[in-house]
Amino acid sequence: MEGGIPRAAAEELDAADPLAGFRDRFVITDPELIYLDGNSLGRLPAATPDRLREVVEEGWGEGLVRSWQGWIDWGARLGDRLAEHVLGARPGEVVISDSTSVNLYKLAGAALDAAPGRGTVLMDAEDFPTDRYILQGLTAQRGLRLRRLASALDGGLDLDVLRSALDQDVALVVLSLVSYRSGALLDMAKVNELARAAGTRVLWDLSHAAGAVPVDLAATGAELAVGCTYKYLNGGPGSPAFLYVRGELQAELRQPVWGWFGQREQFRMGPDYDPVPGIERFLVSTPPLLSLAAIDPALALVEEAGMARIRAKGLLLGRLVDDLADAWLAPLGFRPASPRPPERRGSHVSLYHRDAWRICQTLAADAKVVCDYRVPDRLRIGPSPLYTRFTEVWDALARLRQVAAGRAYASRPTGLARVT
Amino acid sequence: MEGGIPRAAAEELDAADPLAGFRDRFVITDPELIYLDGNSLGRLPAATPDRLREVVEEGWGEGLVRSWQGWIDWGARLGDRLAEHVLGARPGEVVISDSTSVNLYKLAGAALDAAPGRGTVLMDAEDFPTDRYILQGLTAQRGLRLRRLASALDGGLDLDVLRSALDQDVALVVLSLVSYRSGALLDMAKVNELARAAGTRVLWDLSHAAGAVPVDLAATGAELAVGCTYKYLNGGPGSPAFLYVRGELQAELRQPVWGWFGQREQFRMGPDYDPVPGIERFLVSTPPLLSLAAIDPALALVEEAGMARIRAKGLLLGRLVDDLADAWLAPLGFRPASPRPPERRGSHVSLYHRDAWRICQTLAADAKVVCDYRVPDRLRIGPSPLYTRFTEVWDALARLRQVAAGRAYASRPTGLARVT
Repeated sequence: MEGGIPRAAAEELDAADPLAGFRDRFVITDPELIYLDGNSLGRLPAATPDRLREVVEEGWGEGLVRSWQGWIDWGARLGDRLAEHVLGARPGEVVISDSTSVNLYKLAGAALDAAPGRGTVLMDAEDFPTDRYILQGLTAQRGLRLRRLASALDGGLDLDVLRSALDQDVALVVLSLVSYRSGALLDMAKVNELARAAGTRVLWDLSHAAGAVPVDLAATGAELAVGCTYKYLNGGPGSPAFLYVRGELQAELRQPVWGWFGQREQFRMGPDYDPVPGIERFLVSTPPLLSLAAIDPALALVEEAGMARIRAKGLLLGRLVDDLADAWLAPLGFRPASPRPPERRGSHVSLYHRDAWRICQTLAADAKVVCDYRVPDRLRIGPSPLYTRFTEVWDALARLRQVAAGRAYASRPTGLARVT
Repeated sequence: MEGGIPRAAAEELDAADPLAGFRDRFVITDPELIYLDGNSLGRLPAATPDRLREVVEEGWGEGLVRSWQGWIDWGARLGDRLAEHVLGARPGEVVISDSTSVNLYKLAGAALDAAPGRGTVLMDAEDFPTDRYILQGLTAQRGLRLRRLASALDGGLDLDVLRSALDQDVALVVLSLVSYRSGALLDMAKVNELARAAGTRVLWDLSHAAGAVPVDLAATGAELAVGCTYKYLNGGPGSPAFLYVRGELQAELRQPVWGWFGQREQFRMGPDYDPVPGIERFLVSTPPLLSLAAIDPALALVEEAGMARIRAKGLLLGRLVDDLADAWLAPLGFRPASPRPPERRGSHVSLYHRDAWRICQTLAADAKVVCDYRVPDRLRIGPSPLYTRFTEVWDALARLRQVAAGRAYASRPTGLARVT
């Protein structure tokens, strides 16, 4: 496989990569397999199985119910670490809890109840399905209007479109910092400022941003956020999500799901719900401890690498994808479906191809490259800076070129991927 | 330690116990420790660590995102097994999802939306805190009245009290089949019948019943239920909960948290929420897979033992607790806080003592007996038929008698237990 960029260029990038050593901190059972779907499910950190065994055998098996003494605030402690190293928030502003969808429901519900008299929720029409459905449900139940803003062709929401939609009726704006489809990265500070000027709030979904791009919730004046821990944070399948509420705002918001983990002096079991003033008021119930525990060693890797180095490598990986796509894939019917340059997006890149589904399937089955597909015609390529090598990107795109050129994929049935 | 019942009687019960062999199917690291808190967190099944290692190392580590093909309906498959072996429900009526609190919120919300024009929710004033708080939140948000019915002294809700409260304004009745405090067991068929006669529905919380008493949701005409998998089902700390919706009712109910796991053809990611007609419409999002996986081997033990044998042994264990409490503890200031005979309750028993907190703490610290405490003055004793021996109950109550008689506990500070 030859082309505009020699493999030696990728080899040089690997040689100069300050994060190269982190790859060995992950379980990689098949070195032939190129995994470019860390934006869906991050790889297994090598430290995780032992940590889980400890929690299961010593914590649960030996400690039994007594272990809850040490477990009960684990979600808050992990939240503080996320706040410091990943999200740019202050202690007591982030907590791990439930799923991203449930957290979105709780925080959007709280924000809407705190904005009486305003009747519109704004969102990106291209946002992730669960965000759209959750907001449809909340607005339908409250008799509010959900206005879905159209994104630009490359998947980025035009701030002028947002600005012109921000009127006095807007109760809440819900946006993903990084688009799940195109990878488009918004300007958090500017969006927060626009919303503030219109007297409203933004609830950020950071699922595809956390662990991929530096986030500074404090400095950008962000008030509300939720996000996922199993993508670039490598917390494991379905690991519980995080939520952020700016400190100054916590006491005035009340979320709709009044569970006992939000209760002041929880084990007094008092007759009436009386939520703690802090971030725990946004909790509901006993966390799924084994899934929570897996976040701990995963987060340690991100902390050690640091978001600045992760982002720097992510940009170089993204640039390599762009350059190879231009050289090898454009002639085969692929078109960019993400903004450029890489500074304008998160860590994943999308490409249009009318046969994206069949190419994606063939690539996995015949060429040992796992990336993913999004309806109707997009291939998502998600290098993850902690474990993806530059040579893997080069090899993956070379194999993709071969698959797309060979056209053997055309004999595959069409269908739908089942990935989360 | 002597008294009305010789230890030999407990030894005979162990010798005749058809479930005795199941104890070896659990991890028991310290045979001296007597664990009577399976009603809070069940023990670790011996098969669970290997099963988890497989899911983590092969499923996540090796299979990566592709493993979701086999995982995505795991909650429904476990739900079908629970339905058949534990809950007496039909296939497609039970699914594992979220926490008990979130499931209660979803199903109560769905039921209230389906009962327009009715303004009252009935519940037991003594029900578990999170149930009370969740319903406070839901009724407050909808402008409904929450009426809390007083329980009898032994913790059982008097059906005459319920009957007289059931008028045409009742939109929903929420009750625990087994009370978390007293263990009182309600008559599910009769309660369902009373509610039906009043044109309303019952939402059952089965958290302290599932795996302790046989439940027959189909035969008793139950329509809605939720419950916990980490107590008598031994699913592990915070393992996700279950929910049940009677088949005939599913399509007409719509829950308030519109997540993408409820969506028809989920991966088409269509613009508008359009829930599947079946039980999955009550799902929200990606389940915490590691915590979900631990339910699998745990449930296999309950299936193998069978609920009839589990209940038969549970009754004998309960009778032994009653008899020993009468002989040894009544003279020391303990009074029953649970109904009698054991047929009138689940698997746990509560005792009043004004120093219950300090006695519970001393018992664990000095006498290696773990049971638990509930405010303000109750000791909960929860033998779990799959792994508790009759001689353990005898020994535990003998140690409890000694601790209570010795009065060394009086020098302990007072405080609050942190157990879930």
